[in-house]
Amino acid sequence: MKRRDFFAASVAAVAAASASSIVKADCTTDEWDGKSPNQSSKAKLRISSQIHIIPGDKDEDKFERMRKWGIEGVELSGWHTNDPDYWKRVITDNGLTPSAVCWGSHNGDLCSDVVEKRQQGVDDLKKALEGAGKIGCTGVIYVPAFNGQTKLTNQEIRKVLMDTFPALAEFAAECGTNIILEPLNRGEAYFLRQVADGAAIARDVNNGKGIGVMGDFYHMSIEETDMMGAFISAGSYLKHVHLAGGTTDPRRTIPGQNKTRFVEGFRGLKYIGYDKFCSFECGVRGDKEVEIPKACEFLRREWELAVI
Amino acid sequence: MKRRDFFAASVAAVAAASASSIVKADCTTDEWDGKSPNQSSKAKLRISSQIHIIPGDKDEDKFERMRKWGIEGVELSGWHTNDPDYWKRVITDNGLTPSAVCWGSHNGDLCSDVVEKRQQGVDDLKKALEGAGKIGCTGVIYVPAFNGQTKLTNQEIRKVLMDTFPALAEFAAECGTNIILEPLNRGEAYFLRQVADGAAIARDVNNGKGIGVMGDFYHMSIEETDMMGAFISAGSYLKHVHLAGGTTDPRRTIPGQNKTRFVEGFRGLKYIGYDKFCSFECGVRGDKEVEIPKACEFLRREWELAVI
Repeated sequence: MKRRDFFAASVAAVAAASASSIVKADCTTDEWDGKSPNQSSKAKLRISSQIHIIPGDKDEDKFERMRKWGIEGVELSGWHTNDPDYWKRVITDNGLTPSAVCWGSHNGDLCSDVVEKRQQGVDDLKKALEGAGKIGCTGVIYVPAFNGQTKLTNQEIRKVLMDTFPALAEFAAECGTNIILEPLNRGEAYFLRQVADGAAIARDVNNGKGIGVMGDFYHMSIEETDMMGAFISAGSYLKHVHLAGGTTDPRRTIPGQNKTRFVEGFRGLKYIGYDKFCSFECGVRGDKEVEIPKACEFLRREWELAVI
Repeated sequence: MKRRDFFAASVAAVAAASASSIVKADCTTDEWDGKSPNQSSKAKLRISSQIHIIPGDKDEDKFERMRKWGIEGVELSGWHTNDPDYWKRVITDNGLTPSAVCWGSHNGDLCSDVVEKRQQGVDDLKKALEGAGKIGCTGVIYVPAFNGQTKLTNQEIRKVLMDTFPALAEFAAECGTNIILEPLNRGEAYFLRQVADGAAIARDVNNGKGIGVMGDFYHMSIEETDMMGAFISAGSYLKHVHLAGGTTDPRRTIPGQNKTRFVEGFRGLKYIGYDKFCSFECGVRGDKEVEIPKACEFLRREWELAVI
């Protein structure tokens, strides 16, 4: 078949996609003609951490250390959303701010090839969104399917998301939170590996209302060719960032413990005026009392070095 | 299965990917610490066009108009590579420069689910690369598969490329040219829709030696969330650009005839210091003698307005 025939055949498919959702990329705006869209002056490095990474017997002990080390945000796990009142109170009483909920795929139910399983996936995600909204979280981090969790092809998974997510993202927005798509690397999830792809799904679903994307420096170090480009592509759809070193030894460790640099990515975050959280999801080698504050200092230096 | 188990299970797959090819994204360089990687001073808007778009009875008439209108580059079709000596001579004798060869998928043979067809795909592409190299073209624009041309899933298509392309890209480099992957929109080709994905394939195949990616403003207007981010992700892998208006009426027309702006994309091209060709692949409404030079002027103004 010739190229031209494909153009004709595809008009309907593209029109369907563009009627509802293609907003920014057609670039009909003159907002930035002759002036820079560089939003650096608005950008802030706000460090967060998953709770379990922080040493301390009680939650309060952990929170005290986080405050001392300048870690402002608390990233929660799925089970925390079962007791939203407690977590909202204990976090804010300790002078911190909830960031995102690291939820995952829940067996990939929502995108299962077994159609009967999908409703459970929807219900579980709704419950997490409800709790996340009450706690005041930016969103619920969602992985459509880890490798092996569904027999659907990429196209079929995307269709399930397009069918299911407009209502779910609307629900998230009503809860005051977001579904946050997490691109992973090919070894963990072949569907959704790049930040720009996640951003395009968020746009196509609901033009970003109640749905966004995140970037994880570890996965990005495998899948992206340029960290700055990836974050600029995410733009206003970017709701969260995971901090971890890349694939050099030791792998996926806390920033500064392997050779991975953060300057290139931070340039992108600065350009889009990112002021949401960058959160530790990583291992720590050695004494956490020493290594975690050292990582925070390292990141602050990287942020300063990120000139656009 | 828990997230942690996936981390463990995936180490082998990721290690395989990273050993050969993950270079830039792990960001271990300190090249740009504290200074900007902005390459604007190196960037140039060099306009090219597919020959058939230009009015004129003979090739020489077309080339004369191109020179007059400031169109420096000539984009060829696949069949031109059958007579490389003629095309090299006639283009350069007329003071122009060959840009890319628009080749397509050749029925998707190379990625066919019918294994026996694949060798034909390889042979055809090699022949085109040989001709393109002789003419002095930047590369041969290649689409792995239009929708319907293969039953392989995205993962399977990617694997075929990873198996086949290291030798093919090496061959392209020996010919002095490149395989140029073209991301299209979902209506034409579901596999490979974003520029960053194409760039990652080029990196994974051969770290960019003999293989690169292109961006087409029309397809990008459907699939990308940010033109600047997409081009920065392409970086040094970017070998060619197609110029066409996006989906607003009239669709895929010559720049300036619909509402599509080019400033955002040009910002990305400037940032990466792009100095290869931007080439018309589009329809033209009205009198070509008036509309084509008008489009060139429009693009030059857009280029000036693209401030980083």
